[in-house]
Amino acid sequence: MSRFWSSTVHTLTPYVPGEQPRITQLVKLNTNENPYPPSPKVQAAIAAANADSLRLYPDPESTALRACIAGYYGVQAEQVFVGNGSDEVLALVFQALLQHEAPLLFPDISYSFYPVYCKLYGIDYRTVPLDADYAIDPATYRQPCGGIIFPNPNAPTGRLLAREAIEAMLLQHPDTVVVVDEAYVDFGGDSMIPLVNQYPNLLVVQTLSKSRSLAGLRVGLAVGNAELIDGLTRVKNSFNSYPLDRLAQAGAQAAFEDEAYFQQCRDQVIASREALVAGLNALGFAVLPSAANFVFARHPAHDAATLAARLRERAIIVRHFKQARIEQFLRISIGTEAECQLLLAALTDIFATGVEA
Amino acid sequence: MSRFWSSTVHTLTPYVPGEQPRITQLVKLNTNENPYPPSPKVQAAIAAANADSLRLYPDPESTALRACIAGYYGVQAEQVFVGNGSDEVLALVFQALLQHEAPLLFPDISYSFYPVYCKLYGIDYRTVPLDADYAIDPATYRQPCGGIIFPNPNAPTGRLLAREAIEAMLLQHPDTVVVVDEAYVDFGGDSMIPLVNQYPNLLVVQTLSKSRSLAGLRVGLAVGNAELIDGLTRVKNSFNSYPLDRLAQAGAQAAFEDEAYFQQCRDQVIASREALVAGLNALGFAVLPSAANFVFARHPAHDAATLAARLRERAIIVRHFKQARIEQFLRISIGTEAECQLLLAALTDIFATGVEA
Repeated sequence: MSRFWSSTVHTLTPYVPGEQPRITQLVKLNTNENPYPPSPKVQAAIAAANADSLRLYPDPESTALRACIAGYYGVQAEQVFVGNGSDEVLALVFQALLQHEAPLLFPDISYSFYPVYCKLYGIDYRTVPLDADYAIDPATYRQPCGGIIFPNPNAPTGRLLAREAIEAMLLQHPDTVVVVDEAYVDFGGDSMIPLVNQYPNLLVVQTLSKSRSLAGLRVGLAVGNAELIDGLTRVKNSFNSYPLDRLAQAGAQAAFEDEAYFQQCRDQVIASREALVAGLNALGFAVLPSAANFVFARHPAHDAATLAARLRERAIIVRHFKQARIEQFLRISIGTEAECQLLLAALTDIFATGVEA
Repeated sequence: MSRFWSSTVHTLTPYVPGEQPRITQLVKLNTNENPYPPSPKVQAAIAAANADSLRLYPDPESTALRACIAGYYGVQAEQVFVGNGSDEVLALVFQALLQHEAPLLFPDISYSFYPVYCKLYGIDYRTVPLDADYAIDPATYRQPCGGIIFPNPNAPTGRLLAREAIEAMLLQHPDTVVVVDEAYVDFGGDSMIPLVNQYPNLLVVQTLSKSRSLAGLRVGLAVGNAELIDGLTRVKNSFNSYPLDRLAQAGAQAAFEDEAYFQQCRDQVIASREALVAGLNALGFAVLPSAANFVFARHPAHDAATLAARLRERAIIVRHFKQARIEQFLRISIGTEAECQLLLAALTDIFATGVEA
């Protein structure tokens, strides 16, 4: 605490990202990164942009990138917003579109950055409990509110909400923005982007960090009605004119242009996930149905925090949340096939030698 | 205007950055970019970081870069904050350190993003007039306030405020944060960073966009008391955990490590500035004393907006501000020697053929 801080700062509880260990040789299954590198075309585009022109400001409107994304999804460029990772996009969404008198609604078990944004912008919020199977029940969102946001598939559960359920929510709240945070949608769900022309209250947020292997480049996007995008752009241009540097704009565009590579990586991750689920089931784990690049699993006989500690001793990192309702789960990112095998072998060994040992 | 927007959005007047024309073959002297490319070592560091590891999140704390900057300036790493360009750093400074009951003070002629941040964060502000010579008069800041911010050298005037004057302000306002925005300081001023251990209320903001030729990479920084940096970090971690991507962290560090290249480019820009001032004086312009990589010049006989239009017809872009007190000035970025010569030749030709023609 400091006399120099604004009153806002005193109230904040900053977000804690998953550990980014500096040790190499770890099997890192804790932050949902893609186990495969970005497309070679992305690296080539970045190499081409790594030129004398870095002395010049980037295009503040990311015109070429937004046109490329618009073409990819069949929308207009003025329906596309881009930012410095989907975390920045989400922050601007909270400030521009979700700060209203009535409380914002989101699931009780969800992306833990949402309540952090609410504190930063003084947004009143109410969490809505997932059902007993850790699924979003759209009926529970039938209440007055200033906005709705949820990840689809949800994190850290991995569970997908069906399009019909989302459309029901959009119809129930025609004057309220409904944000579908699709960070993981490419791994098993359908994007709601095709619905943005039908529902002016729908905003879809995506990231290139997961399915396009670019967590290290920081590019996120939002697609929706041009009116919503205009609101976001006004806040962005009151905050930072140039959120995406020249390398990020070039690399992100190349990622959307290499569809074959994208599909190949995505399919490999999905295949590895299905194999990992089978392996975890065989070891006695209960695994929630996942449409993401991670699984959420618990073992009826073993404490999750202890299991995470035992894995860590074997140089395998998974994520454990000390949070009510989910403290007996582990969130395990899908690695390469070899990494998934290492995880299963380590768990087999832990069970054989005694978890509490 | 939209029913979906937060009330904040309706009040905003977004910042308008200098034009980034997509036409090449222009002499672009409008946004204070460095005419020389970044250090070859920067390009090499970016090339090395353009690797498979882009699939992984960057270090959220930019540990290596902050340690490098701390070493460069002889401070501790916990006294250094980095962000996605100094515009983002400034935005977080306004939110974390300048949002108080009493009004914020800044010069009436200054960086035009300051009032935009104030609107975004609901900060009450009062502008303090520059004196008749367009200089900051520290005596005019002797009034109750919630914070003070000014660029040094000031923009768009280019005038430098002496260290003694800044120390007087710091002593007059011991419980108030005084932000010195040193975007241009490397071109002719002394940084106030050596004073941060003496004045806990001093925060210095810098950018790599100008003197390190990296406008396209988006890296800015702040140096101050660890308490101020902690406040900034709390807001940053409630907004975006990963503001600097892997390429930007690597490139920025390499820029600070190549001191010889930095000094060489800086010296060339200063030499070109002095030659340009002499040339402008010879053409009858009055030029304010500049410690920056631009000059602020007016001609007693010719309208500035008309001159800017005539230059544009000759494919030379300079910046003109339609703002009281400075509407008869042109802000001209320092280009290469050849570009400065082209500008002087074009002005000579314009005067010869008739400005109003």
